[in-house]
Amino acid sequence: MIDFEALYSISYGLYIVCSGDKTKGNGFISNTVFQVTAEPARFAACCNKDNYSAQFIQKSGIFSVSVLHKDTSPDIFGRFGYKSGKDFDKMEGMQIRYGETGVPIVLNDAIAFLECKVVQTFDVGTHLLFIGELVQSEVLNDALEPITYLYYRQIKKGVAPKNAPTYVDKSKLEKTATGSAFKKFKCTACGYIYDEAKEGKKFADLPDDWVCPICGSEKEDFIEV
Amino acid sequence: MIDFEALYSISYGLYIVCSGDKTKGNGFISNTVFQVTAEPARFAACCNKDNYSAQFIQKSGIFSVSVLHKDTSPDIFGRFGYKSGKDFDKMEGMQIRYGETGVPIVLNDAIAFLECKVVQTFDVGTHLLFIGELVQSEVLNDALEPITYLYYRQIKKGVAPKNAPTYVDKSKLEKTATGSAFKKFKCTACGYIYDEAKEGKKFADLPDDWVCPICGSEKEDFIEV
Repeated sequence: MIDFEALYSISYGLYIVCSGDKTKGNGFISNTVFQVTAEPARFAACCNKDNYSAQFIQKSGIFSVSVLHKDTSPDIFGRFGYKSGKDFDKMEGMQIRYGETGVPIVLNDAIAFLECKVVQTFDVGTHLLFIGELVQSEVLNDALEPITYLYYRQIKKGVAPKNAPTYVDKSKLEKTATGSAFKKFKCTACGYIYDEAKEGKKFADLPDDWVCPICGSEKEDFIEV
Repeated sequence: MIDFEALYSISYGLYIVCSGDKTKGNGFISNTVFQVTAEPARFAACCNKDNYSAQFIQKSGIFSVSVLHKDTSPDIFGRFGYKSGKDFDKMEGMQIRYGETGVPIVLNDAIAFLECKVVQTFDVGTHLLFIGELVQSEVLNDALEPITYLYYRQIKKGVAPKNAPTYVDKSKLEKTATGSAFKKFKCTACGYIYDEAKEGKKFADLPDDWVCPICGSEKEDFIEV
């Protein structure tokens, strides 16, 4: 038997993995970056074959990893996590440093970065596993904590874990919702649910410039669920 | 330039990765277990070639992953993290469940487990990267939080991060230590430092059955530093 809840207990960080050069770069939000050897220091980055970034990494043979912190702007997740670089230039307007290899490194909300040169590429099915040797790394801000995937799921989406003081009993919530005709609205970009009962405010009453707290999508990108 | 401090910002969990069968099994503490594809669900586990467990995984083609929680007993880290199964049977006295493939799964301090069948093995230098397809997974305790490598390093070793209220200014600490002849003792197994100044107790005054809070080694395994 496979219990998919068990998969949530595996710990990950959250990163912007970038590739390309000064003329054209692209990046995506990844939770699977991890060291595979110490001597020499090598890191694996897992990338869906359909990701636009996969082409950049394969072509250039380099990638950078920007480590995100806990209060990373939703715009960063929106830009790099829920939109494709096929449609627009993700690097435009970002604070970029170019590494020793020329790879773009996103500095926005980054507390550290790694720069790697691909030495091996493994096909693991739907994804490619790029093994990169570390050529440069730097701490940019040691006062902020790295964000974990768990934190992003549990805290940033506003759903606290069962044992936390902020836990909301869903059965109670649904009862309230039914009783007072509260509705739920889903972000079509990232799946975030705006729950009127929990927020204590009608979705329609939110200001026009309100954006999805997860991916930065606009109000009109939400549908009632 | 490579700043090795930057590498600490990459997030990991901590797991017991086991292999073998009912007659003989072995396991080790790993921080590099991660999902590489969703369809089908496949996980990578990274294992040093010199690890006794590497032979077990290669021979049996199966491995289990026990997800450890924040208050995991130091004995578990001592047994699976700092000792080799070449010298003794790590499974002896442990609570073991045998998976669908017959692989031993350690239940002590586990909040969830995965059972995987190796479908690919990649040589990444000093380590092997085993790609395993998920055959079984289960949540054993959803009230406890998974331990992260950061938590293990920072909290379990008693050194709080710079911005935490419990942070100890090292320069002040050394001053106190010099002033009152406090000493430091290092665990030769795991490197843990017992700091008399910080603990407020002489190492010599600790009871004879005191063990290293990290790996469970005995007092006599400590040396003055």
